[in-house]
Amino acid sequence: MQATVIYGPGDVRVEHVPDPKIIESTDAVVRVIRSCICGSDLWPYSGMDPAPEGRRIGHEFLGVVEETGSDVNGLRRGDLVVAPFVYSDNTCEFCVEGLHTSCLHGGNWGDEQVDGGQGEAVRVPQAAGTLVKLPAGADDAALLPSLLTLSDVFATGHHAAVKAGVNERTTVTVIGDGAVGLCAVLAAKRLGAEQIILMGRHEARTDLGRSFGATDVVAERGKEGTARIRELSGGRGTHTVLECVGTLPAFETAMRVVRAGGTVSRVGVPQYKDGPIGGLQFGRNVTVTGGVAPARHYIPELLPDIMEGRVEPGRVFDRMIGISAVPEGYRAMAAREALKVQILF
Amino acid sequence: MQATVIYGPGDVRVEHVPDPKIIESTDAVVRVIRSCICGSDLWPYSGMDPAPEGRRIGHEFLGVVEETGSDVNGLRRGDLVVAPFVYSDNTCEFCVEGLHTSCLHGGNWGDEQVDGGQGEAVRVPQAAGTLVKLPAGADDAALLPSLLTLSDVFATGHHAAVKAGVNERTTVTVIGDGAVGLCAVLAAKRLGAEQIILMGRHEARTDLGRSFGATDVVAERGKEGTARIRELSGGRGTHTVLECVGTLPAFETAMRVVRAGGTVSRVGVPQYKDGPIGGLQFGRNVTVTGGVAPARHYIPELLPDIMEGRVEPGRVFDRMIGISAVPEGYRAMAAREALKVQILF
Repeated sequence: MQATVIYGPGDVRVEHVPDPKIIESTDAVVRVIRSCICGSDLWPYSGMDPAPEGRRIGHEFLGVVEETGSDVNGLRRGDLVVAPFVYSDNTCEFCVEGLHTSCLHGGNWGDEQVDGGQGEAVRVPQAAGTLVKLPAGADDAALLPSLLTLSDVFATGHHAAVKAGVNERTTVTVIGDGAVGLCAVLAAKRLGAEQIILMGRHEARTDLGRSFGATDVVAERGKEGTARIRELSGGRGTHTVLECVGTLPAFETAMRVVRAGGTVSRVGVPQYKDGPIGGLQFGRNVTVTGGVAPARHYIPELLPDIMEGRVEPGRVFDRMIGISAVPEGYRAMAAREALKVQILF
Repeated sequence: MQATVIYGPGDVRVEHVPDPKIIESTDAVVRVIRSCICGSDLWPYSGMDPAPEGRRIGHEFLGVVEETGSDVNGLRRGDLVVAPFVYSDNTCEFCVEGLHTSCLHGGNWGDEQVDGGQGEAVRVPQAAGTLVKLPAGADDAALLPSLLTLSDVFATGHHAAVKAGVNERTTVTVIGDGAVGLCAVLAAKRLGAEQIILMGRHEARTDLGRSFGATDVVAERGKEGTARIRELSGGRGTHTVLECVGTLPAFETAMRVVRAGGTVSRVGVPQYKDGPIGGLQFGRNVTVTGGVAPARHYIPELLPDIMEGRVEPGRVFDRMIGISAVPEGYRAMAAREALKVQILF
């Protein structure tokens, strides 16, 4: 089959690799019909150590079950399924608590012996725990993009909002107009927030943010951005800040625009080890939360809203490519020419 | 009157200062009958920049109202009252939310024009909002030490536990066997925690911790301490960690011994600006919370348990001195000869 392999910064290739097969009795093989490129794929794309052997990449996909191991219950050949961006058994103590990203038997797509999601097929470990059957058809072109966002980007935006405690009484700042930031706006709106300030400077994206529920857009950064947020929040900052970028300046901004007693919830993968978490933040009782989103936990809650048309997170996709164009898809996303690239198989 | 003034590291003096008077109509003057020295007083005592003019110090006191301004309702001469460690109006938007430490009209004892708590009398700004009337007598020697802990140390331990979300289903690690750490143990026990691991190496203190509810004591630090906590928590770490020290190593330990998806709640004043809050913590979905405790908010909830003898946080006091011995009290606490020093007027 064809699959995406990354070798180093800027070096993404589509290659012929062995077809996946059942190895463990808990595996399934899924033929991918939609996949996509994630903002977090751009971190290795821009700065990874060279990997001469190559490394499979991609962690968001939706497809059709082709084969199941003997211990996989509840799934059969032909089922349309979505895969969360980590695999998990859905039964261990962490999964039971809803923290599937810390599953005792879980792991990452693209790890050794595990396929990446940007390829024609994937061997799915812990298939019964990982895959969620979708009440849609593989040819349902209107729904598939939004269903694909359950894999990561919508679930991640939702995680940011949930961990921040967003509700109808909380004001919200979303930092970042990438696909996760826009999904965080949508999630905050869905949870009832009435004021949602989106920090972003790319107008096509912030326009989509407005249609997802952003009430204000702040294009300024740094001191000016902080001043604008304070102005928009009665001088106080907002109760919650959803940090959807992952850089140190974004986190620093988050800590400055959050209201005393408020919460900074991070879902952008931190590109820093240490951050401002000392006396100033302590004096204002700021909580820092968030992390890798347990998408698997959230899918049952989010799925009905997509199926019934109440939310359409799939609108974050603004480009559709075939597998051979994946290297160009990476380039376009890294250049911020494309917001989020969908791969059609 | 006599009051405590700090001039620099190791330089605490008791001096004659002007008697406090009503300045604002919202002030009261309180004659102090009990005060104490806080672990946080030891930070300036060990490392402040020299202050040639001197600075009043002390922020925990209990006393009798001597005089009230014309706008002070609900208090009168002769009332026994406790003062939280910041003053606040108890009516602004932050106070209404229970975050009195961010009061729009609040401030700190010892600030310019404001008396410190380690003196014979204090002018109390925002007196109606700040002071809480106590249903006890000024001669009730058995109750006064515990009532005095409402000013800071018990309320602070409680804040750590509340912000961490301690309940009967959460396991708890308390870092630090100082008075706040021991009060955090007591607070966690009061909130129903069944496993409370106390990290501390001073046996008299950890013994008191056990009698407050600690189920395990870990004397080891660093890697060995982390290994012990993991051993005691099924290899996972505990759901909550109450960090009651404030040094960077204590915070680093907290981040290592917390369970994935768990919460580190800090009430030791951070002696660092940046801390480990990057990718590792993000991957494990660790929440960092806590801060300066809004003692005023908690007093109504904690007071009945003290009055009815269900908790006795006053047991953290192991030395009683008069005002003239305050410099020696600081020395003894800094040398860890005394756990917490009470000042009797």
